[in-house]
Amino acid sequence: MNTFGLSFRLSIFGESHGDCVGAVVDGCPAGLSLSPDDLLADIDRRKPGGPGGTPRHEPDVPEIRSGILDGRTTGAPLTIVFANRNARSEDYEALRDIPRPGHADLVARIKFGGFNDARGGGHFSGRLTLPLVAAGAVARKLLAPATLKAALLEAGGSTDIEETVRAAGKDGDSVGGLIECRGSGFPPGLGEPFFDAVESLIAHVIFAVPGIKGIEFGAGFAAPRMRGSECNDALIDAGGKTRTNHSGGTNGGITNGNELVFRVAVKPPSSIRREQESVDLRTGLPVRFSAPGRHDVCIALRMPVIVEAAAAVVLADLMLRQQLLSRTAR
Amino acid sequence: MNTFGLSFRLSIFGESHGDCVGAVVDGCPAGLSLSPDDLLADIDRRKPGGPGGTPRHEPDVPEIRSGILDGRTTGAPLTIVFANRNARSEDYEALRDIPRPGHADLVARIKFGGFNDARGGGHFSGRLTLPLVAAGAVARKLLAPATLKAALLEAGGSTDIEETVRAAGKDGDSVGGLIECRGSGFPPGLGEPFFDAVESLIAHVIFAVPGIKGIEFGAGFAAPRMRGSECNDALIDAGGKTRTNHSGGTNGGITNGNELVFRVAVKPPSSIRREQESVDLRTGLPVRFSAPGRHDVCIALRMPVIVEAAAAVVLADLMLRQQLLSRTAR
Amino acid sequence: MNTFGLSFRLSIFGESHGDCVGAVVDGCPAGLSLSPDDLLADIDRRKPGGPGGTPRHEPDVPEIRSGILDGRTTGAPLTIVFANRNARSEDYEALRDIPRPGHADLVARIKFGGFNDARGGGHFSGRLTLPLVAAGAVARKLLAPATLKAALLEAGGSTDIEETVRAAGKDGDSVGGLIECRGSGFPPGLGEPFFDAVESLIAHVIFAVPGIKGIEFGAGFAAPRMRGSECNDALIDAGGKTRTNHSGGTNGGITNGNELVFRVAVKPPSSIRREQESVDLRTGLPVRFSAPGRHDVCIALRMPVIVEAAAAVVLADLMLRQQLLSRTAR
Amino acid sequence: MNTFGLSFRLSIFGESHGDCVGAVVDGCPAGLSLSPDDLLADIDRRKPGGPGGTPRHEPDVPEIRSGILDGRTTGAPLTIVFANRNARSEDYEALRDIPRPGHADLVARIKFGGFNDARGGGHFSGRLTLPLVAAGAVARKLLAPATLKAALLEAGGSTDIEETVRAAGKDGDSVGGLIECRGSGFPPGLGEPFFDAVESLIAHVIFAVPGIKGIEFGAGFAAPRMRGSECNDALIDAGGKTRTNHSGGTNGGITNGNELVFRVAVKPPSSIRREQESVDLRTGLPVRFSAPGRHDVCIALRMPVIVEAAAAVVLADLMLRQQLLSRTAR
Repeated sequence: MNTFGLSFRLSIFGESHGDCVGAVVDGCPAGLSLSPDDLLADIDRRKPGGPGGTPRHEPDVPEIRSGILDGRTTGAPLTIVFANRNARSEDYEALRDIPRPGHADLVARIKFGGFNDARGGGHFSGRLTLPLVAAGAVARKLLAPATLKAALLEAGGSTDIEETVRAAGKDGDSVGGLIECRGSGFPPGLGEPFFDAVESLIAHVIFAVPGIKGIEFGAGFAAPRMRGSECNDALIDAGGKTRTNHSGGTNGGITNGNELVFRVAVKPPSSIRREQESVDLRTGLPVRFSAPGRHDVCIALRMPVIVEAAAAVVLADLMLRQQLLSRTAR
Repeated sequence: MNTFGLSFRLSIFGESHGDCVGAVVDGCPAGLSLSPDDLLADIDRRKPGGPGGTPRHEPDVPEIRSGILDGRTTGAPLTIVFANRNARSEDYEALRDIPRPGHADLVARIKFGGFNDARGGGHFSGRLTLPLVAAGAVARKLLAPATLKAALLEAGGSTDIEETVRAAGKDGDSVGGLIECRGSGFPPGLGEPFFDAVESLIAHVIFAVPGIKGIEFGAGFAAPRMRGSECNDALIDAGGKTRTNHSGGTNGGITNGNELVFRVAVKPPSSIRREQESVDLRTGLPVRFSAPGRHDVCIALRMPVIVEAAAAVVLADLMLRQQLLSRTAR
Repeated sequence: MNTFGLSFRLSIFGESHGDCVGAVVDGCPAGLSLSPDDLLADIDRRKPGGPGGTPRHEPDVPEIRSGILDGRTTGAPLTIVFANRNARSEDYEALRDIPRPGHADLVARIKFGGFNDARGGGHFSGRLTLPLVAAGAVARKLLAPATLKAALLEAGGSTDIEETVRAAGKDGDSVGGLIECRGSGFPPGLGEPFFDAVESLIAHVIFAVPGIKGIEFGAGFAAPRMRGSECNDALIDAGGKTRTNHSGGTNGGITNGNELVFRVAVKPPSSIRREQESVDLRTGLPVRFSAPGRHDVCIALRMPVIVEAAAAVVLADLMLRQQLLSRTAR
Repeated sequence: MNTFGLSFRLSIFGESHGDCVGAVVDGCPAGLSLSPDDLLADIDRRKPGGPGGTPRHEPDVPEIRSGILDGRTTGAPLTIVFANRNARSEDYEALRDIPRPGHADLVARIKFGGFNDARGGGHFSGRLTLPLVAAGAVARKLLAPATLKAALLEAGGSTDIEETVRAAGKDGDSVGGLIECRGSGFPPGLGEPFFDAVESLIAHVIFAVPGIKGIEFGAGFAAPRMRGSECNDALIDAGGKTRTNHSGGTNGGITNGNELVFRVAVKPPSSIRREQESVDLRTGLPVRFSAPGRHDVCIALRMPVIVEAAAAVVLADLMLRQQLLSRTAR
C-alpha cells in the first residue's frame, strides 16, 4: 500500500534509478499558500553533506504538477515530482544475483517474482523518503503555528557525532544513530480510538522509512523499569498540563496538549566498503563482496527532517479528522 | 478509527462498564474450523491471576453471533461479543471531575465534548483488548502452522518478576514490563511497500493497546550504537537464511523468512493505591486522591497474549494480501 | 467488504436465519440524542404489511449495545443488534442443492466453497437491510433538519399499486417497483472529486441492497434523449438555485443546494409460488420447483425507507467529510 | 477522494488547463507486459473525432514514469502522466464570475472557497477521464482473456447517430446518448458482500465520470414492470448458465458467469453555442451568454472506452480480491 492517511492522504511512487520519485497529496485543504520554494528548506536538510555523505548528488528540484494555482492550493490533489538525474545503475549490474545483506534485494525478488526494479534498491530505496519530506513540508504549513523539531542525539553510541562518523568512514564502515523529535503547539484531542492512536499512526509511517528499528514515546523503554508513582504525570492545571512528561504528550493514544516527544532508532547503513558475506543466487554458494554504489556512512545525519515529515503528515491527517483545520485553509 | 486491516479487517466496539465489548472480523476466509472454544485458551491467558491481579473477574465467555455454521466460518463477518458482568461503576462516580493521571480521562472529555463514557475508562479501557485477543485467536488459526510466542522478559527492571510485582503491590504501587514476541514459520515476502511495512502494521496495532510506550525490532535501540559490519546479517543460503538476526526477520519492511522478533515496552498501570496529584476540573484546584476501582499491579503480566494477537491480525492480513492463504481456508 | 464510509463508517453483519443481524456505526459524533426508540419509526416502515407481505414476522427490536450513555452518543462505536426470532430454516433444507433462480445461492456457494450459510439467503438476505435502516435512522438524526423522503411511484408498471400486488399474489407471482427519493435541505458542496461524487456513493450503497437493478439522478435515462439547451438547468440566483432540476441536485458530483432527486428500479422478488426451472447440482439435471420459505409479493413496498437509509448514511458521511457537522453533535 | 479500489488502487490527478493529468496505479501485479504503446488504442478511442468533436486536439501521449522495467510491471506503483498542450485558458477569463449551467463551476467555488482551478472545469473536467482510460487499459491487460465492450446505442433518442449529432451541432446545441457495455469471460464469484456488490463498484466509478445520469444492469428500469416469473433467469446448467439474462450477469451482487450487461445514460454536454441563462455572481443579476471554449456536441461518442475503463478497473480489483489473478501476473 503506497497510500497513507484518511483525510490528508499521501501516495508515494518512483524508484531510485528510475525516471523520478514523487508524491500525490490528496485532501489538502484549498487556499493554502504553497510554491515549490516552500519545500526547499526541508529538501535541503535531507541532502547529503557533512562527513561521510554519499557522493551521489541530486538537484532534488520539486515540480508541483497539479493542485496549485496562483500560489495557493486548489483542493485538488497535489502532485510533486522529482526527476532522478544522477543514478549510476551500472554499479549494480555486477551484483544482480548477489543480494546485499541488510537490504531488501532478496525479499523484493521473492515478493515480486524477480520483476522488481533492483537498481539501487528500486522502490525500496531511501530515495523514496524525498517525496515524504516534500509532503511533510506541505503538512507543516498546514499545522503552523504548531511545530515539529527533530535532532540527532548520538551516532554510533557517541555524542561526538562528527568524529564517530569520520572514524567509521575511514574504516569503510557505517554507523547508526538515535533521533529525538519534539512537537509543540498541538492541541489536545488528536488521535482516534481504537486503532488510530497518535502513536500508532506516527509509528506506522516511521517504520515505512528504510533503516528504522525502533520507536519510543516519552519514557519509552525506560517505562518498564519504573513504578507507577514515578511514571504517572501529575496534572497541574485543568487544561491538561502535566508536571512531568513521561507519557510523551499522549494519553490513551490521544494528544494531551503537552509536548509530543518520541525517539527513533536508526540502524547503520547496510552498504559498506568493507567486505561482507552473501550468497550467489545462481550457484547457492557463499561469496564475499563490497557494496557497490555510493552511500552514506551515517544515514541518521539526514534523518531528522524525514522523522519530522513522517510525524507531520500524520498530525495533519489527525487535525483534519478532528476538524481543527478548516477545509479551506485560509 | 475502530477498524484495522485491508483483507482481514478487525472492528472493535464496547466499553469497560457498558453492556459488552466485542469484535467484527470481516474478510476471514470461509471454511476455517472455528468454535467459541477455540478462543478460550488465549482468553484465559489474558485473565488476571498471579500476584497483584485485579479482583475484577469476568467470565469472558465469547459468543460468536454471526459468520459460523456447523463449526466452520462461512465467509460472512464474524461477530464476537463478550458481555460485561462484573463492572462496578459506582467506584468512578466520586471522581467524575478529577481526571486520573496517566489515563485518557481528560483527553476523552476534551475530544468528545464530555459525552464520552468515562466509567472505568469507557472505550479507552484495557478491556477493549479482549476482543483483540479473540480476533487474534481466529487469525492464529489461519496462520497455522506459523506461530507467535510472546513472553514477559522483566518487570520493574527485574527478571524476578513475581517478587517485584509483590513488592510493588505491597507499596500500593505498580510496575511496568518488557515483552518479547517471536514469530516462526512465516514465509518471506509479507509486507507491502511503501507504507505497509510489516513493522509499520505491527507497531500500528501494538500502540493501539493501552499502556505501550515503545516497540523495537531485532537489534532495535541497540542498532544506533552498532557499526554496519556488525549489524548486517550475513546471508547464508539462497532462501534468505541469515547468520545473525539483528534485523528481526525483515528487510525493507518485508519478512525475510527468518524468525520475526520484536520487543514492547509496557508502562506501569496508572491506577495505584498510593496518593497522586490531579486537578479538580470544577475548581481548577489541585487535589490528592487514590485511584478508584480494581486494578492490576503489573498489566504486563497479561500482555503477552495481547501482543501475539496484535501481530497475528497483522500477519493474517498480510498473508491474505500476499495471497498465501486461500480465500476458502480448507 | 462489509464496511462503508470514510468518516461515518457503517459495518453490517449477520444472516437471515442465524442468531442476529446488526450494525456497527463508527465515527458518529458524540452528544447526539439517541435511544432505541428513535429507530422504531424507520424499522416499522420496513416491516411487511399490506397486500402480499411475507408471513414471517419479526419483532425487530433494536438493542444498542455500545456507544450510548444517558441517552446520548459517546463518540465510541454504536453497536445495534437485532435478534432473529422467526426463522424457519427447515423450509430450505430440501433445496440445499437446487439453487433458486434470481438468488445468490449458486454464486455464494461458488465464492465461499460451499461453506456459506445458505439458509434463507444467509448473509445475502434482504434481512441485512434491517441494520442499514437502523444506521440510516442514526444518520438522519445527524442530518436534521435536512430530510430524505422516498415513495413507491409504481409497481408492476401500474400506479394502482395495491391492486397490482394483489393480482400478482393471487397468481403466485411477484412484481417489481419504481421508487423515487427526494432530499431537501442539503447544503451545496457535498461530494468529493474524483471518485466520491454524491451519485457515486449513493449508487454504491443502493446497489448493495438486494433486488436493485438501476438508479438514475434527475432526468436520468431521459437525459440521453434531450438536447443541452433543454437539459441544462438555468441558474436563477447566486446561491445556486436553478429554474429546472434535470441534474437532480448535483453538478460535477457535488450537491448544488437544489432538491436531490433519484429513482431506483426494484426487480420483482425472485421467490414465487409459481413453478420455476433450476438445476440439481448433484445430478446436473433440470428440475422444476416452487420457492420455499415465506416471501413478499412486492418487496418494493418495503423499500422506500431502505432507499432513504442508503442515502442518509452517504450524506452523513459527506457532511462530516465536508465538516458541516460538528464532531460533537450538540 | 481521488483514489479508488482496495487491491488494484487507482489515484487520479490533474486539471484541464493545468500542467498535466495523470494516474497512479498501485497494486498492479508484477510481471505484466506493459509499455506506453499498449495504452494507445484505448486513448485513441477517447479522442474527439467524427461529427461535432471539440477542436481542442491533444496529443495525449502517455509517459509511464514509474513502475515498469524492461517492458514489464515491477510491482511498484505505475505513474502515468499526460502533459496538457492545447489549453486555451483565456477563453474562460471573461466568465470567471458567471457559472456555466450544468457545470461544476459554482459548486466547486463554494466547496473550495473560490480557490479551485476554474479554467476549463479544472479538476472537474472530462479531461480527467484520460488517466481513467489509461488505467483501464492496464486493467484490461490483467483481465485478459476476459473482455469488456461498450457501444453507443443511440444519441438524442435516435439510432441515426451521425445525423442527430450533425443537426444538433448546426443548431449550436448538444445531445446525450445511451451506452451499453458487455463483459464476457468473467468467472462467477466476483463481488464482496455487503457493500462491494459488483454493481455497487461499477456504479461508483461510472458516476465519477462527468455527465452520467443513470446506470442500469440487465433488465434495469424494465424490471419494475415485470413479474417474477418473467424476470427470473432460469438456471440451465450446474455452472450457473441461465436461459435469459435479465439480471445482467450478477446475483446478490456477485458475478454469475453469464455476460455482464449494463447501460449508462449520458447527458448532453452542458457547453453549447446557444445562449443560456446564468447569474453574475458579482451583482446577483441574471445574464445571458454563450459557452466559452471548444466543446463536443455529443460527448457520448467518446464515452464507450471510458465506460469500459471504469468497469475494467473495478473488475481487476475484484479479481485480485478474489485472488483469481496471481500477484505476479506471469
